[in-house]
Amino acid sequence: MKTISLLGATGSIGVQTLDIIRKHPDSFALSSFSAGKNVDKARQIINEFRPALVSVLEKEDAERLQTEYPAITVLHGSKGLEEAAVHEKADTLVNAVIGSVGLQPTLKAIEAGKTIAIANKETLVTAGHIVTAAAKKAGVELLPVDSEHSAIFQCMQGEHGKNVNRIILTASGGSFRDKKREELADVTVEQTLNHPNWSMGAKITVDSATMMNKGLEVIEAHWLFNLPYDQIDVILHRESIIHSMVEFHDRSVMAQLGSPDMRVPIQYALTWPDRLPLQDTAPLNLAEFGQLHFEKVDFNRFRMLRLAYEAGRAAGTMPAVMNAANEEAVAAFLNGKLTFLQIEEVVERAMEHHHSILSPELGAIIESDAEARAFVRSFLS
Amino acid sequence: MKTISLLGATGSIGVQTLDIIRKHPDSFALSSFSAGKNVDKARQIINEFRPALVSVLEKEDAERLQTEYPAITVLHGSKGLEEAAVHEKADTLVNAVIGSVGLQPTLKAIEAGKTIAIANKETLVTAGHIVTAAAKKAGVELLPVDSEHSAIFQCMQGEHGKNVNRIILTASGGSFRDKKREELADVTVEQTLNHPNWSMGAKITVDSATMMNKGLEVIEAHWLFNLPYDQIDVILHRESIIHSMVEFHDRSVMAQLGSPDMRVPIQYALTWPDRLPLQDTAPLNLAEFGQLHFEKVDFNRFRMLRLAYEAGRAAGTMPAVMNAANEEAVAAFLNGKLTFLQIEEVVERAMEHHHSILSPELGAIIESDAEARAFVRSFLS
Repeated sequence: MKTISLLGATGSIGVQTLDIIRKHPDSFALSSFSAGKNVDKARQIINEFRPALVSVLEKEDAERLQTEYPAITVLHGSKGLEEAAVHEKADTLVNAVIGSVGLQPTLKAIEAGKTIAIANKETLVTAGHIVTAAAKKAGVELLPVDSEHSAIFQCMQGEHGKNVNRIILTASGGSFRDKKREELADVTVEQTLNHPNWSMGAKITVDSATMMNKGLEVIEAHWLFNLPYDQIDVILHRESIIHSMVEFHDRSVMAQLGSPDMRVPIQYALTWPDRLPLQDTAPLNLAEFGQLHFEKVDFNRFRMLRLAYEAGRAAGTMPAVMNAANEEAVAAFLNGKLTFLQIEEVVERAMEHHHSILSPELGAIIESDAEARAFVRSFLS
Repeated sequence: MKTISLLGATGSIGVQTLDIIRKHPDSFALSSFSAGKNVDKARQIINEFRPALVSVLEKEDAERLQTEYPAITVLHGSKGLEEAAVHEKADTLVNAVIGSVGLQPTLKAIEAGKTIAIANKETLVTAGHIVTAAAKKAGVELLPVDSEHSAIFQCMQGEHGKNVNRIILTASGGSFRDKKREELADVTVEQTLNHPNWSMGAKITVDSATMMNKGLEVIEAHWLFNLPYDQIDVILHRESIIHSMVEFHDRSVMAQLGSPDMRVPIQYALTWPDRLPLQDTAPLNLAEFGQLHFEKVDFNRFRMLRLAYEAGRAAGTMPAVMNAANEEAVAAFLNGKLTFLQIEEVVERAMEHHHSILSPELGAIIESDAEARAFVRSFLS
């Protein structure tokens, strides 16, 4: 039996994590979770999974839930998030919150010796050096949840890291993969949110269309697999069936494939190094597909990917700045304040404006993040 | 340093095994080898690799070589083959001889505690139950050399066998994959030997066109991975880039890919569980391919594959009969005595004619093999 603390229980990854716990009651239990502002969902989760601790965003919501459920602990805010993460009964933290709010609870859970299943991109993108060093020191595992990183992690099982030539992340190309750069000038929010392969949140779907999402994954891969950027490649693969690959130095390439179902990588993070059945997901039928397509990535067409490599190589606070600028720019795009192509323009300017601080402490990262957001906002007003 | 005994040193797999030993002089040495009738090649190998023992087919050739190389042991015939296999200095036997002659030396090497890298299909097809039981008893590893089985073996690294849903062998479809069944009636030997992806010997290229080769691989996979036949699938994949796949019970599919270079799986068998560089083989460039194709196998079109599943399921002496009948039929086809489609007709008749003996001893297998050959020959005269 593995006991899980889940941050971001009401989001897409959180809901699917709960589905896995539901399907394997003999293997998993929920010690604690966080639920943001969605109190109704929190109630449902409490009723079904009977956790010992719950954290919501607002104080009033926490007080209301505490009255309804006097036997469990109900907390709120960033303190509640941390307490949910490090709950004494938890073996594994699934960190599925969105944004830089995920960083601090991850560090606390690492210190507390929890295994970390990491779906929060910002944690590794902005503070990869801190998180990986802390995990190494505490001797805890950082397990990927993202389908691409899970694929790479699965390809690495039974292998020596020293034998890796390169990892190859696959990219669907997002909503506009068949459009030329000049056709992107006047795309709408609605068009952008229509992803061909995966059903995800708005922010990540925009990031998929700009390919910032893949850029963030490149930086995450750098930290998760301890590889320099010139050993991390991206290839366009529109079907998203091969989730990613690893080339070893004997030129053997291992790949992980499957139908697009996020429960597979989530569950793998929870069962690793074992696997449990997940038979209600569709088996892969390659003959039905008939063809898989592959294409070189054009860094001029997908400028955000080039920026992400640049930010990763610049290291220090630069990835945090890129990420913060992108979050602000995407929000502005979704609110109609920026055009699609202006997202990357804004991110590039924020990066040009920033002087990266190498090996930053947490404080410097948070400061750079705030400065980048302020820069983008000044830009928009 | 691993010391290797190599049976079939002058064939395609043998030559490539020697190339791997040549490229990694710090990792591998050659203790002994067999070379059939090719005395010139044997001389070259002795001069380059300085083994302690050599075996050739004919007594006269052995005597001549012994005079030329008085310091090493030169043997001949089946006794020589066995002595080469079990040479005291050898850690690993690479069995790359063709035909049922490979069986006895493999069993001797297993008894002697050698690791077995197995490229001799007949060993597992005709006596899989004996070989796997002997390996289990002696506690030795049976490592696949075939690209498909090596792919599956690589996909299984770090995994539990109990979690396997099915293995998926890929098949190029051979020389006539784009021909309908009715177009096969008058294909020539020359057309048959023109394989689209791999350059191999004549027998195996014919087997690839009839898909008997894939059928033999299905039976080998049954023994190597201890799986029932309904957990072994075959899919058509014309590019032969994905060498095979494993689906686990969480629906995650692992695949091994690469350019068609047999040195990759051969070397993996020698370096497992580690890998060594093999940088002069072409790195896989999927973007250059652009597309990979997959198609369901039609068991009416590829009747030999259906026969192989039937023989495997019938078990006992039936696979030996199928294999022997096929060897005779292919030889007759290459000599112009049978048409292409008559190969499968002959194999099917030999199987119909045979009553399978379950759990046969070696003697019964050899007898069934001989009877099947006699049956086919009587048929041809």
